[in-house]
Amino acid sequence: MAEPGTPPRERILIGAADMISRRGLNATSIRELARHAKAPLGSTYHFFPGGKQQLAAEAVQHAGETVARILRRELDAGPAAGLRAFLELWRGIVVDSDFRAGCPVLAVSVEEPPADGIPPALRAAAEAFQHWERLLTEALTAHGAEPERAPALAALVVASVEGAVALCRAKRSIQPLDQIAQQLETLIGETCRSPQQP
Amino acid sequence: MAEPGTPPRERILIGAADMISRRGLNATSIRELARHAKAPLGSTYHFFPGGKQQLAAEAVQHAGETVARILRRELDAGPAAGLRAFLELWRGIVVDSDFRAGCPVLAVSVEEPPADGIPPALRAAAEAFQHWERLLTEALTAHGAEPERAPALAALVVASVEGAVALCRAKRSIQPLDQIAQQLETLIGETCRSPQQP
Repeated sequence: MAEPGTPPRERILIGAADMISRRGLNATSIRELARHAKAPLGSTYHFFPGGKQQLAAEAVQHAGETVARILRRELDAGPAAGLRAFLELWRGIVVDSDFRAGCPVLAVSVEEPPADGIPPALRAAAEAFQHWERLLTEALTAHGAEPERAPALAALVVASVEGAVALCRAKRSIQPLDQIAQQLETLIGETCRSPQQP
Repeated sequence: MAEPGTPPRERILIGAADMISRRGLNATSIRELARHAKAPLGSTYHFFPGGKQQLAAEAVQHAGETVARILRRELDAGPAAGLRAFLELWRGIVVDSDFRAGCPVLAVSVEEPPADGIPPALRAAAEAFQHWERLLTEALTAHGAEPERAPALAALVVASVEGAVALCRAKRSIQPLDQIAQQLETLIGETCRSPQQP
C-alpha cells in the first residue's frame, strides 16, 4: 500500500491496483476501489473523471511503472541482481498479504475484454509486460546473452514469475517462487557466462 | 467446449470452466455459468445442489484432471513430448478463443478467498497444479533429471506456461507461449541428457 506522504491521486492508484490484484477488475466497483484506497468516492471521480475504466488503466500503468523503476535500478548491477529484486518484490507482496494479493497486471490480463474493443486497462497490461521484458532483454544482452536468445529468456522470467505468484496464492505457500528462483538464477548464470567488457 | 455426446453433467462442468477462465469466478453468477454451458438453471442446480461454489470447485477439478490425463498420456513418450502436448493444449485454448479464454485453474487462484476460509475451488486449483507438477517431476526423474532438481523444473514449466497464457491474452499474440516453449525445450533437453534405460 501507499507510503505516508504519497499524494492523494497516487494513493488512489496504489490502493486500486492492490484491490484489482486481490479481486480482479470485473468483480470490483469503483466504490470498492475508492474504499480500499481510503479515498472518498467524490475525490476519486475528481481525479479520474473517466470512472472505473480510467482508474483501472492508470492503476495498472502505475503498478507497471513502479515495477519497471525497481527493475531498471537493480538491473544496473546485472541480470542476476535484477532477477533477485524482481522476485523479492513479488515475494513481499504475496507474503505480506498472507497470499491474498498478487499482480494487478496479470489480474486484468485474464479477464475477457468486451466484444466491442480492448479496454485501456488491458492495453496498459500488455505495455507493462513488454516494458519489463525489454529491460530484462537489454540487461541480458549487455551481459553476454545472445541477442536472439535474450528476449525469449526475458519472456520466460516474466511469465514464470507471474505464474508462480498465482501458484503461491493457490497453494498458500512461497515454495513456487523459491523453486523458479533457483531455476532462473541458474539459467541466467549460464546465459551470461561471458560478460561484455565496457 | 464439450464434444457432442458428452453427458449433461460433464457438459456443464466444461462450460463453467471455460466461463471461469474468461471472466473469473467472483464476477460470474451460477446463472451465467449455466447459460454459457447451454444448460437450464434447474438442471444445473439438480446436478450441483451446493450451487456456484460446488459447480466452480468441480469445474476446476474437472479441468485439472483433463489436463492431467493428456499430460500423463503424452509423458509416456518422455518429458519433451509431454511439454509439447502441454503447450499445444494451452495454445489451442488461447488461439481458438481469439485470446479470450485461458486457464480456469489460474483464474480462481488469483481471486482473494473470503476472510472465513478457503473456498473449495481454490483448494481444487492447488491440487490441480500439484498434480501436473507431480506428473512432470516423475517423467523428468525417470529420464535422467536429478531428483533434487526435477520438482523445481516441473514448477518452472507449470508456472511459466500459466504466466505465458496470461501474457498472450494481454498482448493478443501467441509469441509468449512460443518464446517459453523454446526455452523450456532446451532446458528439459539439457536436464535429461542421460536417460535411464529400463
